[in-house]
Amino acid sequence: MTVETVSLNRSHGGMQGVYRHASRETGTDMTFSVFVPPHQGGAKLPVVWYLSGLTCTHANVTEKGEYRKACAELGLIFVAPDTSPRGEGVPADTNGSWDFGLGAGFYVDATQPPFSRNYRMWSYVTKELPELVSSAFPADLKRQSIMGHSMGGHGALTIALSNPSGYRAASAFSPIVAPSQVPWGIKALGGYLGSNKEAWRKHDTVALIEDGARFPDFLVDTGDADPFLKEQLRPELLERACAKANIPLKLRSQSGYDHSYYFVSTFMEDHLRWHAARLDRSGR
Amino acid sequence: MTVETVSLNRSHGGMQGVYRHASRETGTDMTFSVFVPPHQGGAKLPVVWYLSGLTCTHANVTEKGEYRKACAELGLIFVAPDTSPRGEGVPADTNGSWDFGLGAGFYVDATQPPFSRNYRMWSYVTKELPELVSSAFPADLKRQSIMGHSMGGHGALTIALSNPSGYRAASAFSPIVAPSQVPWGIKALGGYLGSNKEAWRKHDTVALIEDGARFPDFLVDTGDADPFLKEQLRPELLERACAKANIPLKLRSQSGYDHSYYFVSTFMEDHLRWHAARLDRSGR
Repeated sequence: MTVETVSLNRSHGGMQGVYRHASRETGTDMTFSVFVPPHQGGAKLPVVWYLSGLTCTHANVTEKGEYRKACAELGLIFVAPDTSPRGEGVPADTNGSWDFGLGAGFYVDATQPPFSRNYRMWSYVTKELPELVSSAFPADLKRQSIMGHSMGGHGALTIALSNPSGYRAASAFSPIVAPSQVPWGIKALGGYLGSNKEAWRKHDTVALIEDGARFPDFLVDTGDADPFLKEQLRPELLERACAKANIPLKLRSQSGYDHSYYFVSTFMEDHLRWHAARLDRSGR
Repeated sequence: MTVETVSLNRSHGGMQGVYRHASRETGTDMTFSVFVPPHQGGAKLPVVWYLSGLTCTHANVTEKGEYRKACAELGLIFVAPDTSPRGEGVPADTNGSWDFGLGAGFYVDATQPPFSRNYRMWSYVTKELPELVSSAFPADLKRQSIMGHSMGGHGALTIALSNPSGYRAASAFSPIVAPSQVPWGIKALGGYLGSNKEAWRKHDTVALIEDGARFPDFLVDTGDADPFLKEQLRPELLERACAKANIPLKLRSQSGYDHSYYFVSTFMEDHLRWHAARLDRSGR
């Protein structure tokens, strides 16, 4: 596995890198960012995965997420993948819209042509990229956790529920929690997975919980001035599902906050401390 | 004075705004950003001015500066102006270069045509914008301080030295300290102020100090991996001038850091605490 360094900058005592590699899963070049905090030589560090939202690349959180200071203090590696395959030959939405196709991979392995060849973000984020990160960085894959924003919150929660022993913590900012029931999700899951809604349930946080998936606990922040809150995010559906399944959910509605990185960056440190507390526990 | 709100986002308990207004000094629309921290109704808050570097707008530090958490804690208003006039009819460098003209106002009032009509960033930053900020925000103009990055560090230090009773603190990240002696500065000061180098001395930190200007103390950070350090920034010239003039200078060379916002954001909190300590003193 060859990784090309796009940029490398010292920041908050650690190193913020941006990297590119040829992905076997997506069949394209993929770009991602990794922050490695200051650490002792030979140390292996826990890894926090951050999945981004619609239209984003690694760059949004890398530039605006304000995670480096806390990661440096807490000793966390922070990895931010892209949100879809990109490049020549990658099919996009025929209408050029921003909520499907490029920048909108929804963290699934597509089964429908023409998307099934490249849109394999589930396998990319859960298998290929962890392997690459553990080979190229001082990462301890026995201590991983996952968080995300909006579509990436959907990705983080569904990935954690599907592999609860693989991740020690999961949290989200403004997640899409029930894609099968909201316009963004119906369009994306229909386009990538086809019209059989049974296939969607493995990629829907609320449906996964209804079908028996479990995770120790979740932290979720939403903003009450988020324009997508009522139609696309619907945190009350997650609240109901977690209550019914006895999954402890720390769900906070933040007054005056919207869907932007001004919101994410404000609560990033809280989330990283939540993750660090769970990553520090040896074993489970 | 009419101010148009471009965007307004809650962040770190305060409000991050971006605003536009028709400037009498530059004869153009000007965009700037203001962070107002959480505060009691009726309170008047100290103001930190942040001047940006070559090619930047208000957006670079607003998105990447990581200043909001500390400003919220310390109760500081943070204002980031643009770096030049922009728009139709504003003369730019005939060669389209990035180190003169648009994005490169150098915080002077140009005397040379065709730049003298619009390039009035000195008066804009020291007179027009403070008036506007005090009329539209809960700002206490008796408690102002100033900082900047690169070309903006040049702006911050020269403005503080020219009006030491107007600013209670001054600091810089990677400043241009002797523009009369380095390529960026020689091009800019020559273009805006003409070939008589006597006129440049009021816009050169080292020359101002040599000519008798004083300020209580300075904090300056540079990165030892900054590619511009030796040719354009030359912090040793500031060190020598301050030593000779008995101006206390806290000059720190930060190991491994470059010229980017990854560097600025790392030390932003330190600078804001330096400013807050000096802004909190009642009187002088």
